[in-house]
Amino acid sequence: MSKQKVVLAFSGGLDTSYCVKYLTEERGMEVHSALVDTGGFSAEELKTIEQKAYSLGVASHVTLDVVNHYYESCLKYLVFGNVLKNNTYPLSVSAERVFQATAVAEYAKKIGAKAIAHGSTGAGNDQVRFDVVFRIIIPECEVITPIRDMRLSREAEIEYLKSKGVVQEWHKAAYSINKGLWGTSVGGKETLTSGGYLPEEAWPTQVTKTTPENIKLYFEKGELKGINDKVFENPVDAIRELTEIAAPFGIGRDIHVGDTIIGIKGRVGFEAPAPLIIIKAHHTLEKHVLTKQQMYWKQNISEMYGTLLHEGQFLEPVMRNFENFLGDIQENVTGTVEAHLAPYRFHIIGIESKFDLMSSVFGSYGEMNNAWSGDDVRGFSKIVSNQTMIHRKVTDLATN
Amino acid sequence: MSKQKVVLAFSGGLDTSYCVKYLTEERGMEVHSALVDTGGFSAEELKTIEQKAYSLGVASHVTLDVVNHYYESCLKYLVFGNVLKNNTYPLSVSAERVFQATAVAEYAKKIGAKAIAHGSTGAGNDQVRFDVVFRIIIPECEVITPIRDMRLSREAEIEYLKSKGVVQEWHKAAYSINKGLWGTSVGGKETLTSGGYLPEEAWPTQVTKTTPENIKLYFEKGELKGINDKVFENPVDAIRELTEIAAPFGIGRDIHVGDTIIGIKGRVGFEAPAPLIIIKAHHTLEKHVLTKQQMYWKQNISEMYGTLLHEGQFLEPVMRNFENFLGDIQENVTGTVEAHLAPYRFHIIGIESKFDLMSSVFGSYGEMNNAWSGDDVRGFSKIVSNQTMIHRKVTDLATN
Amino acid sequence: MSKQKVVLAFSGGLDTSYCVKYLTEERGMEVHSALVDTGGFSAEELKTIEQKAYSLGVASHVTLDVVNHYYESCLKYLVFGNVLKNNTYPLSVSAERVFQATAVAEYAKKIGAKAIAHGSTGAGNDQVRFDVVFRIIIPECEVITPIRDMRLSREAEIEYLKSKGVVQEWHKAAYSINKGLWGTSVGGKETLTSGGYLPEEAWPTQVTKTTPENIKLYFEKGELKGINDKVFENPVDAIRELTEIAAPFGIGRDIHVGDTIIGIKGRVGFEAPAPLIIIKAHHTLEKHVLTKQQMYWKQNISEMYGTLLHEGQFLEPVMRNFENFLGDIQENVTGTVEAHLAPYRFHIIGIESKFDLMSSVFGSYGEMNNAWSGDDVRGFSKIVSNQTMIHRKVTDLATN
Amino acid sequence: MSKQKVVLAFSGGLDTSYCVKYLTEERGMEVHSALVDTGGFSAEELKTIEQKAYSLGVASHVTLDVVNHYYESCLKYLVFGNVLKNNTYPLSVSAERVFQATAVAEYAKKIGAKAIAHGSTGAGNDQVRFDVVFRIIIPECEVITPIRDMRLSREAEIEYLKSKGVVQEWHKAAYSINKGLWGTSVGGKETLTSGGYLPEEAWPTQVTKTTPENIKLYFEKGELKGINDKVFENPVDAIRELTEIAAPFGIGRDIHVGDTIIGIKGRVGFEAPAPLIIIKAHHTLEKHVLTKQQMYWKQNISEMYGTLLHEGQFLEPVMRNFENFLGDIQENVTGTVEAHLAPYRFHIIGIESKFDLMSSVFGSYGEMNNAWSGDDVRGFSKIVSNQTMIHRKVTDLATN
Repeated sequence: MSKQKVVLAFSGGLDTSYCVKYLTEERGMEVHSALVDTGGFSAEELKTIEQKAYSLGVASHVTLDVVNHYYESCLKYLVFGNVLKNNTYPLSVSAERVFQATAVAEYAKKIGAKAIAHGSTGAGNDQVRFDVVFRIIIPECEVITPIRDMRLSREAEIEYLKSKGVVQEWHKAAYSINKGLWGTSVGGKETLTSGGYLPEEAWPTQVTKTTPENIKLYFEKGELKGINDKVFENPVDAIRELTEIAAPFGIGRDIHVGDTIIGIKGRVGFEAPAPLIIIKAHHTLEKHVLTKQQMYWKQNISEMYGTLLHEGQFLEPVMRNFENFLGDIQENVTGTVEAHLAPYRFHIIGIESKFDLMSSVFGSYGEMNNAWSGDDVRGFSKIVSNQTMIHRKVTDLATN
Repeated sequence: MSKQKVVLAFSGGLDTSYCVKYLTEERGMEVHSALVDTGGFSAEELKTIEQKAYSLGVASHVTLDVVNHYYESCLKYLVFGNVLKNNTYPLSVSAERVFQATAVAEYAKKIGAKAIAHGSTGAGNDQVRFDVVFRIIIPECEVITPIRDMRLSREAEIEYLKSKGVVQEWHKAAYSINKGLWGTSVGGKETLTSGGYLPEEAWPTQVTKTTPENIKLYFEKGELKGINDKVFENPVDAIRELTEIAAPFGIGRDIHVGDTIIGIKGRVGFEAPAPLIIIKAHHTLEKHVLTKQQMYWKQNISEMYGTLLHEGQFLEPVMRNFENFLGDIQENVTGTVEAHLAPYRFHIIGIESKFDLMSSVFGSYGEMNNAWSGDDVRGFSKIVSNQTMIHRKVTDLATN
Repeated sequence: MSKQKVVLAFSGGLDTSYCVKYLTEERGMEVHSALVDTGGFSAEELKTIEQKAYSLGVASHVTLDVVNHYYESCLKYLVFGNVLKNNTYPLSVSAERVFQATAVAEYAKKIGAKAIAHGSTGAGNDQVRFDVVFRIIIPECEVITPIRDMRLSREAEIEYLKSKGVVQEWHKAAYSINKGLWGTSVGGKETLTSGGYLPEEAWPTQVTKTTPENIKLYFEKGELKGINDKVFENPVDAIRELTEIAAPFGIGRDIHVGDTIIGIKGRVGFEAPAPLIIIKAHHTLEKHVLTKQQMYWKQNISEMYGTLLHEGQFLEPVMRNFENFLGDIQENVTGTVEAHLAPYRFHIIGIESKFDLMSSVFGSYGEMNNAWSGDDVRGFSKIVSNQTMIHRKVTDLATN
Repeated sequence: MSKQKVVLAFSGGLDTSYCVKYLTEERGMEVHSALVDTGGFSAEELKTIEQKAYSLGVASHVTLDVVNHYYESCLKYLVFGNVLKNNTYPLSVSAERVFQATAVAEYAKKIGAKAIAHGSTGAGNDQVRFDVVFRIIIPECEVITPIRDMRLSREAEIEYLKSKGVVQEWHKAAYSINKGLWGTSVGGKETLTSGGYLPEEAWPTQVTKTTPENIKLYFEKGELKGINDKVFENPVDAIRELTEIAAPFGIGRDIHVGDTIIGIKGRVGFEAPAPLIIIKAHHTLEKHVLTKQQMYWKQNISEMYGTLLHEGQFLEPVMRNFENFLGDIQENVTGTVEAHLAPYRFHIIGIESKFDLMSSVFGSYGEMNNAWSGDDVRGFSKIVSNQTMIHRKVTDLATN
């Protein structure tokens, strides 16, 4: 009888290395490892992880490159929606987990595996994101989660791997780092308490630029398509370029405090220069080209888009309706935004757009204009006060 | 026959100086000028303005100090709601105009005036705020707005005043500045276009501090009651102290782009170090002590609170209901927030609160815990996926 | 010199008849009358109105048939959104006014008129709807509103017309009736106070059916496409058919109490059998085929869609984004709804749809099922209680 | 060693009778049964259930009367919020389950029980409501759910009870009925499918009144305090009286289709004459006395209040903030509402209130008025059109 196939979401770390051995030796399964690339790995790193997988004894290993799909299906909408969870965090990790889970699930389907495994522990958000996506895409598959189920300590995992001949330096980094196209998260030590900030050396990119720079970002229907004189056909490349420009300034660092899906509070540091600059630039452009009503409603929709994404509910049908709405509203979001970058900070200088509603043709703020008169405003003020004026009179009469 | 009394909202500037003369000489009225102090004037400035009023020939002049009332009735709720209009502007001017208008209207009522005047032009928000408040509080009064109605140029006003013997240096400042407890606005030149940023010298406070400082802010039920070792009975004093500490860093500067009440877009610079630090600190504390549902709903309510305030609708009855909600939800918002101040920027370091929900007693993020098991989360994930899973299956069946 | 062209929104009633004479004789204009048909006129009525216009001396008269456009651009979305203003009123008149104003404005543009007139009085919603649409589509045109501006009484209008040789029986009906495809409004007497209900004889359709009937409505992507065995290519015909079936039952009558655009409260009776049945049927179908999140968000969007439409803001760009969202979400809203019609009332019996999420395959409500276990629900309950449980413990500890 | 105490939420039905025997004999526990009365039992029924409990061998039985508490803490707010889930269902059962669970949990705490049991099955909402409330109030208690865990069939339960000497007629009713102060639910047969309606004989109250009646309901700050000439100190008595008046008309019947907490769709019939009449009357009164902004925001808040209550999240802290908001906004909701009751239907005739904003003093809808002029409205229309007008011009220029 042939062994049962299992697809393992593999990262090359201690937990998923343990899983390979555990699934192979204790469960007698044929392990097919899959690494999903959402933009955080170099070609070399991918190669190293593959070698590691084979050395641990997987039956096959595959790298699933989903970067463009990830941008097209999700990051694009995070920009359209100016999504910053709790007004701070660009959802760097939350977003990519869903795409990793989806790619692994589709792969399991493709190779006909009846089991699927992930190495998440039992205390964070990632376990839910994997569980939920697997349940929706491949509900018939068994989901195996050894680390969560056995509540294993690092020491126990290392001991077990050693007993299986896997001898390696599993040094525990002071911080757990997760890198992707949309930012890098940094957790550990200070972020495990409510009071501390990450020290300079904990940040993935060290500050090496000290001379401020001004840059121009060109947006087309809400998407970043150019930086300074460079035109990008694929916004993914623009995001990468902007990261290279801004990261050495130490821009885009902060600590996110938020609600995990399982109800406890969590705190995590992140370095996300491109997302923070793009979102603030895009938002400023929108303030010039969208109407007040459009701004208000897209904010409501975006807030929920970010929350559902964060909670692993990316596949909820309403998310497609939200994306449609957010995309539709970008029709006029075309123009150039200038930003000033300096060590640890940036600000928006201004914008230029042919769709700019702040046009001097129609009366400019603070100057007199010709499209309406003082009497028009007086009439307006009267009418918009009517209900409160009546309410006040009626209440006074009724209560006195 | 005695002259008709008119109360004039007086600032000492060219426009309202013109109004004194116009109302007195052209309309034959008895002018009672009133200056409302919302925290932006020194004792000396108040004295100077009073002298100016009398020298222009007012029948009486009064200074209405509403600072504490302004804080208690409005600023407090802007903190509770973390209100930043368009995610940027603390509504520095918007809020104080309403309180100026209200104080002047109540004063007109008190002295039995049947007419009231303001010096707003016809292109901005302030005219509506004055009109609306007057209409609601004293609907029977005639509202006189000479500058708006006659579309006067500065030159014409100066000429007229000169003809009435008022010879003064009416130098037009490059920027129009408005100072109050909740920040200073700076408009002119660059802000009149979509593309420019204010130059260093345009900002009211120049950067003189270059050595970073850490400070501790103590909140009690959402109100700022202490800075470092200093305890403040009156949060107004804490706001003033924080302004003094932070302004010389150049913190809290930005440009607000937004919708005026009359439908055009406007842009204005502002320097509001205390509001920006207080709001970010308060918000961070809330992330630790409020539930996810509380955070979500207070954001929705706050957004509208800020918008209606901005649009002069402070007297709408729903605003009282919003305040009640925002106050009620502050029950546990007590604790200390540490912030790092540096030239042109600041960030929150962390918080400490006995109401902190990020308590290690209940399982900490990223670590295994004892209040629930991996199976509990697995069950949770299954159930929260149910509807999307069913939707997907039903749709597949129906469309294939 | 040739006379100035003016386009007049003409209804054949007293007010607009007055306008024809007034514009012609007092203003010396060349009047081009336009009647916009939104589904409330018979061919005979249209003919009569045309004759009336010419007899009053218009230079030209045109009937603009916008029924299909009105359905496609607006009514469709009112169904998608289950829009009942204040949970009661299908916006029968509000919706059609906007389309009348738009058609007239486009017509003025087409024939090159530089002036446009409407006969609204100064106390209702219609004046604003006309003003707003004209201002947006033809901002350069002069808008003439004789009835509003001169505050004319009926008697004065009749007198004036008589003096111009227009002798006619202008009997004032007890109720002012407005008929369109989406319902008939009935205002007057009882609706002018807060306390009375319309008497039986005031309703446009008298109750002649007394035997209950069951009917089946077939929806395709949210649109009504069939009734019982009849298939309709054009939903407009289905609406007309349903009106004929249901009106003689006295179904769809009620009184709407709401806020006018100008801030006062208003009350109006309406008879709208087809809209009420269609909306309740459509809503019930949605409850079966949409997810909880879809239901929640479309309700929020629809509420605002209805409000902005009601207030004459149909041309706001966000309305197009709303329509896009509401249309997108109808993808699965296909199926049959059965309703029971009886004198003065109806109820929904049930639905049938291949997209029905209430499928016994996935566990039925109240019966045990196989897609999850009791332990899964137990785990779910634990996790969803986490935050409140922690909040309670922390608060108890902190306050005791 | 003494036996372990367990508190059982007891209803006297088959499932909880099984639980008594199972807990006593199989688990060796000391069973303390508790029946929570939320207004659905007569004194006689309470007596019968108590006798049944003792005859099954409980160590003690208690009836917990929470009717007034239930009204004060919850029903009151359902009226303030006009809460009808999915625009249909007054949450009759949803609300009372939470209060039953809470009362039982508090009782377990009081008598020092370390275990608590409920008889819910694994496919509905009630299990979650019990689980969640128990988890929050008594997280340290073991929760025992025999019916859910063992997936027992009725036959198996009856067999087991028979084997323990409990011989009784456990006839399965065609419909499962749940009666409480806020309505009676009816589930079974037709409601288990998507297509059927309940037959006449399935409804708990048969139609015996055929002559229409008009009644007057008097509200004080949102609470029902009088019916016709009768004044009620306790609104609970008013609700009971109204139920007696209206139920024999067959008023308040419908079928609710909605989302269960566990993600599947469910359908249930209900008869709730008093809730439906009270809510529609209260809502109508609010339309007259609240401002547009108040109406809008209380609807948003109420919608979520109902949803969280429905999903067993009554103890979430935000619910207290919502209640505070909903209560605060009732300040002016005082007045009399007249309703017309007829077989199977009712409608609101009108209202009378000293807080009525539809006051002829301030200009009545459709009539000319004196508080503003046609020019004021013209100015208003101009200003509110500004942004859309500008948007249209700018877009035309930019795209052509």
